[in-house]
Amino acid sequence: MENEKRTDVNSLGEFGLIKHLTQNIKLENTSSKLGVGDDAAVVEYESGMQTVITTDLLIEGIHFDLMYVPLKHLGYKAVIVNLSDVYAMNATPKQITISIAISNRFSVEALDELYEGILIACKKYNVDLVGGDTTSSAKGLIISVTAIGEANENDIVKRSTAKENDLLCVSGDLGGSYLGLQILEREKRVFLDTPGIQPDLENQTYIVGRQLKPEARRDIVQLLKELNVKPTSMIDISDGLSSEILHLCEASKVGCQLFEEKIPIAEETYNQALKFNLDPTTCALNGGEDYELLFTIAQTDFEKIRNNPDISVIGHMTASEKGAILITKGNNIHPLTAQGWNAFSGN
Amino acid sequence: MENEKRTDVNSLGEFGLIKHLTQNIKLENTSSKLGVGDDAAVVEYESGMQTVITTDLLIEGIHFDLMYVPLKHLGYKAVIVNLSDVYAMNATPKQITISIAISNRFSVEALDELYEGILIACKKYNVDLVGGDTTSSAKGLIISVTAIGEANENDIVKRSTAKENDLLCVSGDLGGSYLGLQILEREKRVFLDTPGIQPDLENQTYIVGRQLKPEARRDIVQLLKELNVKPTSMIDISDGLSSEILHLCEASKVGCQLFEEKIPIAEETYNQALKFNLDPTTCALNGGEDYELLFTIAQTDFEKIRNNPDISVIGHMTASEKGAILITKGNNIHPLTAQGWNAFSGN
Repeated sequence: MENEKRTDVNSLGEFGLIKHLTQNIKLENTSSKLGVGDDAAVVEYESGMQTVITTDLLIEGIHFDLMYVPLKHLGYKAVIVNLSDVYAMNATPKQITISIAISNRFSVEALDELYEGILIACKKYNVDLVGGDTTSSAKGLIISVTAIGEANENDIVKRSTAKENDLLCVSGDLGGSYLGLQILEREKRVFLDTPGIQPDLENQTYIVGRQLKPEARRDIVQLLKELNVKPTSMIDISDGLSSEILHLCEASKVGCQLFEEKIPIAEETYNQALKFNLDPTTCALNGGEDYELLFTIAQTDFEKIRNNPDISVIGHMTASEKGAILITKGNNIHPLTAQGWNAFSGN
Repeated sequence: MENEKRTDVNSLGEFGLIKHLTQNIKLENTSSKLGVGDDAAVVEYESGMQTVITTDLLIEGIHFDLMYVPLKHLGYKAVIVNLSDVYAMNATPKQITISIAISNRFSVEALDELYEGILIACKKYNVDLVGGDTTSSAKGLIISVTAIGEANENDIVKRSTAKENDLLCVSGDLGGSYLGLQILEREKRVFLDTPGIQPDLENQTYIVGRQLKPEARRDIVQLLKELNVKPTSMIDISDGLSSEILHLCEASKVGCQLFEEKIPIAEETYNQALKFNLDPTTCALNGGEDYELLFTIAQTDFEKIRNNPDISVIGHMTASEKGAILITKGNNIHPLTAQGWNAFSGN
């Protein structure tokens, strides 16, 4: 990599860099009225539409490790995690703003890679990049993304509206992203011990992909609309199934029975968990970063979704006083706990 | 300060901390439909209104120094700099989201101070805090603010619509914030040399206040509406007068004649510049962080604003090929240059 071109960001200056990074952006959505280059962006949704806004801060050394995360994938993922929040409101993302802070060690070419990933995600999800901020950091790379979307007032689905006896459903499968991360961490340790060695990711393309290049479940939101199923509550899985179920229960003031045998886990995830001496169910419950949708539906909607391979019914909501519990394959009962990601443990 | 209560952020956990910081927030604006606590916030403006969005990233060691910036003031200022961008679009801010990243050295009490300042700014400017993110940082404090506002389509004022012969106007006075910063930096050096010494800020309350607790010029936006003056272009002064004039000229494809004698500089600013052996005009041109509004108006509107003590006419726009120039008190001509703040110099 020694011969790669490396242009110092200082050679462009702040305004030059912003211009360089944003010069090829074209606004595609009719709701994007004014993009990068003024004091603020301007958007306008049709009369009667509500605006949905979500924001996330991603910090090098906390949320990602540039030793194994390519900048292009990082840019892509930074957008996806925010779009996932918009879809979890049953809304459609339309615009994002991106702020980045970088230290001097980043070159213009490195930022180009980051922006390439950002813009690929924008294109795939029909979202316009309309604004942001670029500055220097004291240490490492910091990315702040704000996503803006629209929905009819009647379509918006909150966390707080699940009802007793509703069915608890999840899209896709769980735990893969966490195990992908474990593989990347293992290969990093191997590399640090023996520099120059190539990482061994051959047989784990699915789970490593879940970690490095997650997708937002736009398809599930669209599918539910086509099936005429409006979830009674919804949340995306960023911190782990267990933590997200507890959020739904707390916000909706209900309890939950989750059945271990119903939790969808891909074969590759399952096998890799066993290789690491980890319980696959624990990986699904506490792993996080799957960006699947967790939602509740009325029992009367069950027939509409029962045969869909992308949706699993994993439990049902109960009275609040029954608590949130896991019923294991062995028919034991465990209270669900929010291990999730402790953002302050410095992991 | 040794006896101050210090609660470790880890004792609350991420979700507990968010709840602690946001539990007393009440949504005041009818457009704020859903606040903190779901995957995203929801806002709804009246039919025909456009939505304005702006975002800024503030980083300890780059944008602020906690040795002399009280956290309460920092929270206040972090909101103000974003509201200033919304007003610069001739729009009205209605909501903000705040994301913060902190290292373990911050206590819950320190964050309470930061949020106190944030919420005081929200209350003063009738803005609701509707969302955000809280996480840990590898180093120092990071604050990302997104402000959302509304405006009639016809009211929005861009940077790109100044016309030749328009008058160039600025609110308030310039250079004070920069000199306030120089005083704080000097007192920091004195303190580091002689710990325990009290800072000498007695006679500089105005300029130190300009640095530590700036305001957004909502009053100017309202005044111009009352006077029935719609600026032909507008920008807020965050990087210095010179840099912002160049932004207006470039976006509008016009030139500018700026008259040194017309640049408004407060007496305290002027005197302090001389004490530091600095040229007061240079401080106004390149200092930045004044958060005044720089705007152009049609000549036919001159009579409406001429007697207002808060607005100074400092020049006029010319043909693009004449460039952006300063005409000094001695009648010399200097091209304006964007020294401004070089975000990548690590200052």
